[in-house]
Amino acid sequence: MIHLESDYNNGACEAVLRHFLDTNNERSQSYGDDRFSQHARELIREACAAPEAQIYFLAGGTQTNATVIDCVLAPYEGVLCCDTAHINVHEAGAVEFTGHKVIALPSHEGKLCADELRAWLEAYFADGTAEHMVRPGMVYMTFPTELGTLYTADELRALHSICRQYQIPLYVDGARLAYGLAASSDIDLPRLAQLADIFYIGGTKCGALCGEAVVFSQGHAPVHMLSRIKRHGALLAKSRVVGVQFEALFTEGRYLSLGCDAVRLAKRLRHLFVDSLGYLPYIDSPTNQQFYIIPNDDLDRLRKHIGFEVWCPVDATHTACRFVTSWATTDEEIDLLERDLCSFKAADKKEPGNNCHQALSLL
Amino acid sequence: MIHLESDYNNGACEAVLRHFLDTNNERSQSYGDDRFSQHARELIREACAAPEAQIYFLAGGTQTNATVIDCVLAPYEGVLCCDTAHINVHEAGAVEFTGHKVIALPSHEGKLCADELRAWLEAYFADGTAEHMVRPGMVYMTFPTELGTLYTADELRALHSICRQYQIPLYVDGARLAYGLAASSDIDLPRLAQLADIFYIGGTKCGALCGEAVVFSQGHAPVHMLSRIKRHGALLAKSRVVGVQFEALFTEGRYLSLGCDAVRLAKRLRHLFVDSLGYLPYIDSPTNQQFYIIPNDDLDRLRKHIGFEVWCPVDATHTACRFVTSWATTDEEIDLLERDLCSFKAADKKEPGNNCHQALSLL
Amino acid sequence: MIHLESDYNNGACEAVLRHFLDTNNERSQSYGDDRFSQHARELIREACAAPEAQIYFLAGGTQTNATVIDCVLAPYEGVLCCDTAHINVHEAGAVEFTGHKVIALPSHEGKLCADELRAWLEAYFADGTAEHMVRPGMVYMTFPTELGTLYTADELRALHSICRQYQIPLYVDGARLAYGLAASSDIDLPRLAQLADIFYIGGTKCGALCGEAVVFSQGHAPVHMLSRIKRHGALLAKSRVVGVQFEALFTEGRYLSLGCDAVRLAKRLRHLFVDSLGYLPYIDSPTNQQFYIIPNDDLDRLRKHIGFEVWCPVDATHTACRFVTSWATTDEEIDLLERDLCSFKAADKKEPGNNCHQALSLL
Amino acid sequence: MIHLESDYNNGACEAVLRHFLDTNNERSQSYGDDRFSQHARELIREACAAPEAQIYFLAGGTQTNATVIDCVLAPYEGVLCCDTAHINVHEAGAVEFTGHKVIALPSHEGKLCADELRAWLEAYFADGTAEHMVRPGMVYMTFPTELGTLYTADELRALHSICRQYQIPLYVDGARLAYGLAASSDIDLPRLAQLADIFYIGGTKCGALCGEAVVFSQGHAPVHMLSRIKRHGALLAKSRVVGVQFEALFTEGRYLSLGCDAVRLAKRLRHLFVDSLGYLPYIDSPTNQQFYIIPNDDLDRLRKHIGFEVWCPVDATHTACRFVTSWATTDEEIDLLERDLCSFKAADKKEPGNNCHQALSLL
Repeated sequence: MIHLESDYNNGACEAVLRHFLDTNNERSQSYGDDRFSQHARELIREACAAPEAQIYFLAGGTQTNATVIDCVLAPYEGVLCCDTAHINVHEAGAVEFTGHKVIALPSHEGKLCADELRAWLEAYFADGTAEHMVRPGMVYMTFPTELGTLYTADELRALHSICRQYQIPLYVDGARLAYGLAASSDIDLPRLAQLADIFYIGGTKCGALCGEAVVFSQGHAPVHMLSRIKRHGALLAKSRVVGVQFEALFTEGRYLSLGCDAVRLAKRLRHLFVDSLGYLPYIDSPTNQQFYIIPNDDLDRLRKHIGFEVWCPVDATHTACRFVTSWATTDEEIDLLERDLCSFKAADKKEPGNNCHQALSLL
Repeated sequence: MIHLESDYNNGACEAVLRHFLDTNNERSQSYGDDRFSQHARELIREACAAPEAQIYFLAGGTQTNATVIDCVLAPYEGVLCCDTAHINVHEAGAVEFTGHKVIALPSHEGKLCADELRAWLEAYFADGTAEHMVRPGMVYMTFPTELGTLYTADELRALHSICRQYQIPLYVDGARLAYGLAASSDIDLPRLAQLADIFYIGGTKCGALCGEAVVFSQGHAPVHMLSRIKRHGALLAKSRVVGVQFEALFTEGRYLSLGCDAVRLAKRLRHLFVDSLGYLPYIDSPTNQQFYIIPNDDLDRLRKHIGFEVWCPVDATHTACRFVTSWATTDEEIDLLERDLCSFKAADKKEPGNNCHQALSLL
Repeated sequence: MIHLESDYNNGACEAVLRHFLDTNNERSQSYGDDRFSQHARELIREACAAPEAQIYFLAGGTQTNATVIDCVLAPYEGVLCCDTAHINVHEAGAVEFTGHKVIALPSHEGKLCADELRAWLEAYFADGTAEHMVRPGMVYMTFPTELGTLYTADELRALHSICRQYQIPLYVDGARLAYGLAASSDIDLPRLAQLADIFYIGGTKCGALCGEAVVFSQGHAPVHMLSRIKRHGALLAKSRVVGVQFEALFTEGRYLSLGCDAVRLAKRLRHLFVDSLGYLPYIDSPTNQQFYIIPNDDLDRLRKHIGFEVWCPVDATHTACRFVTSWATTDEEIDLLERDLCSFKAADKKEPGNNCHQALSLL
Repeated sequence: MIHLESDYNNGACEAVLRHFLDTNNERSQSYGDDRFSQHARELIREACAAPEAQIYFLAGGTQTNATVIDCVLAPYEGVLCCDTAHINVHEAGAVEFTGHKVIALPSHEGKLCADELRAWLEAYFADGTAEHMVRPGMVYMTFPTELGTLYTADELRALHSICRQYQIPLYVDGARLAYGLAASSDIDLPRLAQLADIFYIGGTKCGALCGEAVVFSQGHAPVHMLSRIKRHGALLAKSRVVGVQFEALFTEGRYLSLGCDAVRLAKRLRHLFVDSLGYLPYIDSPTNQQFYIIPNDDLDRLRKHIGFEVWCPVDATHTACRFVTSWATTDEEIDLLERDLCSFKAADKKEPGNNCHQALSLL
């Protein structure tokens, strides 16, 4: 049995736990001033080639999004994103709780389209009634997206350029950043720090017990950021808890390498599902979140061997399902899954090609 | 050098870290449904003799207060507390951020006075203009208080009885609950669960890396609590992070015993400061937070041997300082401090009695 | 020159001003208890055949929407509406300011589609991750809509029935209700009170200087409504200001008759624009807001005779414009406009039929 | 029977109603751009000798306070005031609703003490934990105060100077400004505009049907103020409603003269109550709000002749009561009251001197 329900169904990567043990007897400052957090910030600045960056550590993803967005926006501003964005759908209204509108543009496989963003902003600023509308104050995107897809450097550059033109900060939610960097051919941390005004490096889903590192790339964090964070209930007294973890993750390239492992295993998974089993991808994801179209008749049998998440119905007889690898997934687990599903396939007496054909006909 | 600046200058107690290691390879559910959180809830219900209790795990103290208070209050309600209460002073307005007024009554060594609370409520409900005022919807108290003091069971019972009469829930902030339970002669967890409608069992300051356990004693948590918590950015995806820790803390009586250790060491500290060094207590605290009146001339020399926090000026030549023991403080550290301050005292050529006398004259 | 920019470019209907004069020397209670407000409530209950209705008077439309929506929704709930809804577009984020998400469904000429609403609700409640999403707590619609269109009684009944099924209140924004009732063949106040759980009777745009009457049809206003309204800054001390006006408007059927006058003049306008001038309607509105497609070449000349609002570009050479009649518009003004535009047309040397043909070809 | 319950138990002064009639047939712009509002702004700038002032018209007092305070404060800031301040007591938490803490200092007959304000600010900025506390971002005061008292120019100058030193704006709530200006010997509108960064000129209680004029004396209103106001639900579409009224009030010195009339009548009332009837003042108010200590035995008989408000109990047998004159109060009413209470006194068979003596003995 392999568990691919999510990338937060695990503990922490070994180096993180070991670092907790190694540092446990030290006493430290608090509220972000501890030496672990300070060192972790240095390591992140180096990894991002962003010596001016200001970095804040928070506990979780929704908290980070709500806090960053509310702190950066003026009260009368809203945040632009695509309609599948996490903040628009799956954060229980945490951004609206802080008083800001989430303005949704169409999603293209989880991504914002630069042309549509530009057209929206042009129309807004040309509208004589604009002052009666929520003013756009930030563009939010996820990397990788909620659908596992990635922006290319060109796409990101186009979005960044529009944001520059309208003097609106571009904020990248990197809850799964390790996996995005591992899968991207042209975006690494330094480039991300150049193109995103603000981004966060996800820890919770990428090897840590908890914790996210918010990076203001050029150092333009709002004034009194500590008070702002505390007011959101997001300031950890024992800040070393996140500092220690990011110190471990940004030592010896661990953050990047754990992403690479998970993406490599996602590719093995893809080979198994598409090439061997003949399932069709629901979406073409290069990262650790994989989505396949599963005939409903197969669902129960699959569940005996693999934990996954039902994503959405595709048609009356097929369901899109999500399978997520993580730093905790092992080659042994995929080996076992291959063996399990191989017999599964045999029992099924179906040709992968047929499944494939059948699924294709749905689209 | 001993560090008594705070009870969050440390890592986690050994059992907590060990339990992280032991459970790290398991896969689990998320958002509170993981087996660690479920088991921790069972253990807490047993420890509280509160089989109906509903329990939620959050990451930190300010977050917990803001979330609980906002979720329990009706929109037009405020929370009553004494003016030194943490929510009124040191949470950067996190409660007001959620739209609610903090209504402050006088503090008596950090405590609410039942008679004053009753008088306030009587006056409010007798006031013909009450509907133009913020309605009282909760009474908040800390146990121990911000000044290290404790309510007796009789005091707590009196507050609880008033709350019953006015149908207002009583909420106890237990950020340092382990130390309060250790020092109290008549309040234990079952009694607390009887007298507080809601309370939280502090983890961050009491042996955990992070995490607080909110207990709705009679099980009357607001509906849709998960959505409410998430909306506050306070729902941990990887909920096991707190569940694992409370599982460890509520196994083999660890939560209570680590509190006892810290309180025992606070007593040793008190003996050293008052009896040996002749300092006067600034406040008579039976718990892990100790406050002494230090002549300003002694401050720098003290700082060579001990980390502490300046609390407030007492007069032109004396300062109240806070010294905090925790589960992480050791007998060896106190031994060393005794040796260090003994020589300190000798070098000082002062009689403790004199200091004492001098300090008394200030009050 | 006739001013059709809006229905709030005027003062108050004569009866309203006269009633101010007649009552000016009386002294009255405040905060809603004055005899004018109480009598106005009685008159509205009678007009709505809703003896149980609870009625609150507020000052303006955005204030009313934000206050009602926030007071009725639970904190974790959002409001469903169509994407062109006033609260979603033109209230500067006033609903989000109160912490609630506006959830937009597609607009069909300004209207919600019952089937789409049902499908959305079914999908929401079938979604296993629903508790991570904003819960639907109200359906908002406008009558007439922002595009001047009207729901039929069947359409309204269908929406109401879905709301019943899901126990979600249906709220009707009646900023221009007088004009909607005048133009509707099958919805009058009693029927509206049966089908809408909450609605407001617009005063500002319908004959009053200011003021809107919120009706909870079955009397299910939230508890402590006065405190809730005050907390939103929406409680008028001198409440008679709105009470006096609604007393005048709901005496001798004035509210309905002023709506009829405006709709009759809108029909004259339509005859002039479509039949005489050959412009195409941009949208088929039976109410006081009329939208026509104007060749850009005509805009400046039109502006010499008529004040109107540019709505949106239709194509490179045509613009949709809004012309709004109100209780203050007179037959004499339309007469004059007919004369002015008749000469305008003659000067133009164009055949209306040609314009018409040209415009049609765009669609 | 004379009604002195409040200064909002009336309609509008004659000139205001007449101006509504005179302007009713004009069409106008909206959202503050109408010519009435523009002219009223000019008149107010002249009256304040503040040519740079920016002026916004809102509907009511609580709305104005909440909107101004929220718009001016940074999110992490709170507003300082004295504990009897309207925003702290009688606005149902409208400021906290916008996310800001109201920080209360002691009240001295309704007034802030400059020395206490300075001491508080010094302590705040000297506190090493200040970033964990709500930052002071505004000082709020009322003129006249809730107790009818007035700051002298020296007192106001002292507060203003402290605010300058700490770069915190001083905001004056002038809900009853007409009466304060009438009673003050050394503060007029130009001086107020010099000493208050922001203030509002109350209309609702000073001759208008509704409406308050917010003045940013040096023109430093926050950017995008229109959007901010609308977001609070406080932007009137038909803005002329307030503009017309302030145009009338600031023509021919009406605003000041109606205040003078009310204060003159308050003096007649004081003569009657203190000199003739022998009641003691509860507080020494020079403005239109008068507070007297009434023996409880007299309350019912007084109520037959005069409407007033019970303020608070003084002791077991006496009650402080509030009697409020306004622009609508007439000499004839006071004449009648004198006759009524004269007989009342006679029936009472008591000597005023005795009452006086009795009352004095309470203090």
